[in-house]
Amino acid sequence: MKATIYHRPKSEDAYAYDKSTMHIRLRTGKNHVRKVNLIYGDPYDWTKNQWVTSKKEMTPTGSDAQHDFWFVEVTPPYRRLRYGFEIITKTETIYYGESGFLDTPSKDTSDYFCFPFMNPADLFSPPEWVKDTVWYQIFPERFANGDPSRNPEGTLPWGSAAPTPTNHFGGDLQGIIDHLDYLQELGINGIYLTPIFEASSNHKYDTIDYLKVDPHFGDKTTFKRLVDECHKRGIRIMLDAVFNHAGFYFPPFQDVLKNQQHSKYSDWFHLRDFPVRAEEPPNYDTFAFTPFMPKFNTENEEVREYLLNVATYWIKEFDIDGWRLDVANEVDHAFWREFRKRVKALKPDLYILGEVWHNSLPWLAGDQFDAVMNYPLTNAIIDFAGKQKIGQQRFEHVITQLTHMYPIHVQQVAFNLLGSHDTPRILTQTDNDVARVKLQFLLLFSQRGTPCIYYGDEIGMTGGQDPGCRKCMVWEEEEQNQELLSFVKRLIQLRKQEKAFGTEGDLTFVENDSSLLIYQKTYENQQLLFVINSTDQPDSVQLPVSWTNRNANDLLTG
Amino acid sequence: MKATIYHRPKSEDAYAYDKSTMHIRLRTGKNHVRKVNLIYGDPYDWTKNQWVTSKKEMTPTGSDAQHDFWFVEVTPPYRRLRYGFEIITKTETIYYGESGFLDTPSKDTSDYFCFPFMNPADLFSPPEWVKDTVWYQIFPERFANGDPSRNPEGTLPWGSAAPTPTNHFGGDLQGIIDHLDYLQELGINGIYLTPIFEASSNHKYDTIDYLKVDPHFGDKTTFKRLVDECHKRGIRIMLDAVFNHAGFYFPPFQDVLKNQQHSKYSDWFHLRDFPVRAEEPPNYDTFAFTPFMPKFNTENEEVREYLLNVATYWIKEFDIDGWRLDVANEVDHAFWREFRKRVKALKPDLYILGEVWHNSLPWLAGDQFDAVMNYPLTNAIIDFAGKQKIGQQRFEHVITQLTHMYPIHVQQVAFNLLGSHDTPRILTQTDNDVARVKLQFLLLFSQRGTPCIYYGDEIGMTGGQDPGCRKCMVWEEEEQNQELLSFVKRLIQLRKQEKAFGTEGDLTFVENDSSLLIYQKTYENQQLLFVINSTDQPDSVQLPVSWTNRNANDLLTG
Repeated sequence: MKATIYHRPKSEDAYAYDKSTMHIRLRTGKNHVRKVNLIYGDPYDWTKNQWVTSKKEMTPTGSDAQHDFWFVEVTPPYRRLRYGFEIITKTETIYYGESGFLDTPSKDTSDYFCFPFMNPADLFSPPEWVKDTVWYQIFPERFANGDPSRNPEGTLPWGSAAPTPTNHFGGDLQGIIDHLDYLQELGINGIYLTPIFEASSNHKYDTIDYLKVDPHFGDKTTFKRLVDECHKRGIRIMLDAVFNHAGFYFPPFQDVLKNQQHSKYSDWFHLRDFPVRAEEPPNYDTFAFTPFMPKFNTENEEVREYLLNVATYWIKEFDIDGWRLDVANEVDHAFWREFRKRVKALKPDLYILGEVWHNSLPWLAGDQFDAVMNYPLTNAIIDFAGKQKIGQQRFEHVITQLTHMYPIHVQQVAFNLLGSHDTPRILTQTDNDVARVKLQFLLLFSQRGTPCIYYGDEIGMTGGQDPGCRKCMVWEEEEQNQELLSFVKRLIQLRKQEKAFGTEGDLTFVENDSSLLIYQKTYENQQLLFVINSTDQPDSVQLPVSWTNRNANDLLTG
Repeated sequence: MKATIYHRPKSEDAYAYDKSTMHIRLRTGKNHVRKVNLIYGDPYDWTKNQWVTSKKEMTPTGSDAQHDFWFVEVTPPYRRLRYGFEIITKTETIYYGESGFLDTPSKDTSDYFCFPFMNPADLFSPPEWVKDTVWYQIFPERFANGDPSRNPEGTLPWGSAAPTPTNHFGGDLQGIIDHLDYLQELGINGIYLTPIFEASSNHKYDTIDYLKVDPHFGDKTTFKRLVDECHKRGIRIMLDAVFNHAGFYFPPFQDVLKNQQHSKYSDWFHLRDFPVRAEEPPNYDTFAFTPFMPKFNTENEEVREYLLNVATYWIKEFDIDGWRLDVANEVDHAFWREFRKRVKALKPDLYILGEVWHNSLPWLAGDQFDAVMNYPLTNAIIDFAGKQKIGQQRFEHVITQLTHMYPIHVQQVAFNLLGSHDTPRILTQTDNDVARVKLQFLLLFSQRGTPCIYYGDEIGMTGGQDPGCRKCMVWEEEEQNQELLSFVKRLIQLRKQEKAFGTEGDLTFVENDSSLLIYQKTYENQQLLFVINSTDQPDSVQLPVSWTNRNANDLLTG
C-alpha cells in the first residue's frame, strides 16, 4: 500500500493556485485508502516547543486504473507551508511526509513536506482573456485567395487539385480579412495563423526573413489591417514563431554554406564539421533529419538577440496577441525564460503557446509558457469517441490522468484541439462519420482548457495526414455541412453562456453500469449533466439520484 | 505491482548528465521486478514506417523499505530521446511509458516518455573545483580575535563565558588570517564565512550595510588580505548573502518606520498595513515572526538591482569564490535565476550554495543553485551513527532515498555537513562520545558531495542549540582533542588521495546478516570496503566473496 503513494512538492501536486491559495494533491493505490487528511501549519508557528498544526480532510477527485487521487485547498496566512498526510485505510492510519512513512504524526517539521513561500513572482499567471477564448487555426495558403495579384507562379485554381507538399492555391491575408464576418458569426474570438513570414515552402515553416510578410500572403499593410479588423471584432490574433530552426534560404545559413568556417554566422547553427554538407544526412543539427531546416544555436548571444528582436518587433509594430512556438520543446529552457521576460515586459497579457506534444510541466511552471498544444487530450477523445479504440472506462481514466498531470490553472488555458495542420482531419480520422465528429467536438468543448477549431473542420472538410489535411477551404455553402456548422456554433455559444460548460466548470464522472459516459460539470450553483453514447448501439441509463425530480433544460436541442 | 511504478521525465529520473550522456532511472515496488530494459530511440528515426528503437538493460541501484531503483546511461547521437521501460516480473512482461502500461511495446512514439533535446544551456554545471573541496565553516565572532582594537564595547575575554544571543568575544577577520596555517595543515581548501557585513547582532544575519565589512570584524583592506592569503594557499572563500530579509537597522527599513507610506522604500518590503508596527506580531512579512528581520520584496525592481549589485560587488572587488544564500527557499525562483545569470557572467566558476533544508530539486535544475546544505544527510548520519535512533538497514534505506532524490552530478557537489551555527554541535548531539563523532565524520567524508567541518568540531568542541554551538574556538592544543583532529586530517587526506573514497566513488551497500553496515566504494579499478559498527557491541562478519583472497590495505590505520 505504502509503495503506491506519491506526492511531490512544487509540482502538479503542490502549487500556489493564486496569491493566497495552495492546492495540494495526493496519489494513492486504487481502493487502498478510505480517507486522507492534510496536516499542515506555518513552519515557524510554535507554542511551548510544539509545532502548531491544523487538519483538513481531502476530497477524492477521481481514479485511473491504478490510483485514486485526493485534493485539498488551503490558504496559509503567512504564505508558508509545511504539510503531511494522514492516510486512513480500513486497518491502519499512517503518516506520510518528506522523510517517508510513520505510524504516528511527527513533531519534527523536517519530516513534513515544505512549500517555503508563495512568492507571486513564481505564480503561473496566464493572461485573463485566454480562458474565454475559442480559437480558430488558419493555414493561410489554403483559407481564401483574396488578392490574386499575389498568387505565386503556377498557382492552381482554388480547390482544383489535391494538396501536395509543393503546390499553391494563392491563399493570403486579404482572403482572411474577407472572411472575418464568417468567423465572427461562427463565434470564435482568437485566430492562430501558421507562419506568415517569407519562406520558400507553402507551409512557411522554413523562414527566410523573419521581419517580412511573405509576399504571396501580403505585406505589412495587409497584416496591420488584418490585426486591426480582428481587434475591432474582439478577435485576438496569434502568430507562429519558428525559432527552433531556420529555413535553408535564411541568409545567415546561406552565408555558412558559402563561407563555411569563415562565415560570421558559423556559430549560429550547430555545425558538426566542415565543409557543411546540405544533403542527407546533414552534418549539422536540423529539425528531424531534414537539411532544409538547420537548427538554431540559441546559446549564441547574437542568435538570441536576433530572435528576441523578432518576437518583440511583431508585438510593438502590429500589436499581436500571442505567439505560438514551433517545436518549442527542442529549444533550451533558458531561451524561453528570456523570451517570456522580453515579450511580457512589452505586452503583459500576450499569450505564449508552446508546441509540445507530451507531458509539458517543465515548460508550464510560470517561467516559460502559458500553455501547450494539448495533443494527449486530442488522442484520448479520438480514441474514445472517434475510433472506439478505448471504452468509456479507459477514457475516464485517461481524462483523470490528464487532470492530475497539470495544476488546475494550467489546464484552464490549455490549448485543446481535435486536429491541426500536422494531423489527419478529424472527419477523415473517424471514417467520415459526422455524428462522431459532433461527439468529439462536444467532448472537446466541455473540457477544461480553450478549444481550437482547425479551419474547415467545422464544415466537415476531409483530408489525411499532411499534405492531405491542408486542402483549400470550401466556401460554397451547399458544399459545407451546415448541420455540423450549426452544431459547432451552438457549442461556441454554450461556452460563452454557461460558465459550467467550459473551462471553469469542475468535471466529475458519474459511475453507472451502462456503456454510456456520464459526467457532471459544476460552476457555483449551476450543474450540467453530459450523457454520451460513443457506441453504435442505443443504451439507456437511470439518471443519478441527485438529478431526479429536478427541472433541467436540454442545452443542445433546446 | 503497476501502481508502485514511477518515472518522471526532466527530473532526478531523467536528466542530461553531461553534453552527451543521459541518465535514466525507474522506481518499482520492492522485489516486484526481476529485470528492466530501457527501450529507446531518436524520435525522428523511422525506417519503412517503423520507429527504430534499441534496448539496454538497467542496473539495480538499491532499495528502500518500499521500492527498488534502476539505472541506465545512454548517449543519444542526435541528443534527442524517446524512451520507455520493458518491465519483467516472474509472471509477466509489461511496457511503461507516458501513456501508462501496455502489454506489448507500442509502435506509437507518443506512448513513450520524451526528452526532446539535450541543450547544453540547460545542463546542471557546477564549477569543476567544487568536487575536490573540503569546506570549513567559520563564525567570525568566535574563531579568533586578531585585532583587539576592533573589539566591540563590552567584549569579554576569549572563552571566558558561555555564548549568549548578545555577548561578544572580539573574533575578527585578522583572527582568521592569523590561523590560516592551522587550516592549511588541517587540509581544508574552502572556507565558508557566516555574514561579515555590518550588522547589529553578533551573528550578523541582520544586515545594516551590505557594502561594508562590519567594523568589529575589520575593513575592506583586512578582507582583501584574507581573500588573497586564502588564494595563495589554494583555499577558496565563500560569503553569506542574507537576501531574504534585511536587518532592522537597514536604513531603507528605518526610513519606512519614519516616513511610513510616504517612504520611498515602502515597496521594498511586504507591508500589510500602516502604520508599520515593529512589535510582535509585526504587520509586515519577516523572517519567521521576528520584527527585526523584515523580508525584502524581491519583486520590486529597485530591490533586485540593489541586491544583485551587492552580489556582484564582492566578486568584482574582492574575487570571492562563492555565495551561500541564507533562507534561500523563501526568496522567489525568478530572483535566483537572475542572480545566477549576473554572478556567473562575472565569474563563471563562482559557487552558489542555497540554504534549503528539505528536498531541493526545484532549485537545482541548472538555472539557480549549484548546491544546497544537505541537512537530510546530516539527520541520517546522526540518527544512525550518533544517536542510534535508526539501525543499519533503515540507514541504508535513507541513503538510498537520498541517492535517488537528486541527479548524480547534483549529489557530487552537495554541501554535506554534520552541523552548523544553526544546530547543536555534533559531539554534544552524541553524548560526548568521541568514537561516535569519528564514525559520523567517516560516514560524512565517504558520501557523494563535499564535506564541511563546522569550526571546532574537528577538535571536539561542545555546545547545544544556538547560542551554545557558537563558543569561542579553543586554540590551546592541550585542550583540543588531538586524536580526533588527527582522524579528521586523515579523512581529508584520504579524500584527496583516493578517488574512490570521495565524491566520485560509486557507493554500493553489501548485504550481510550481521549488525554491521558494509559498503563498497568504487572508482575505475579502485575499490574500498567500509565496515562500520555503530552499535555498542562487537560483531564479526565474513567479508563478501569478492573480497576474499585479495590484497587490501587498511587505509585508516595504515
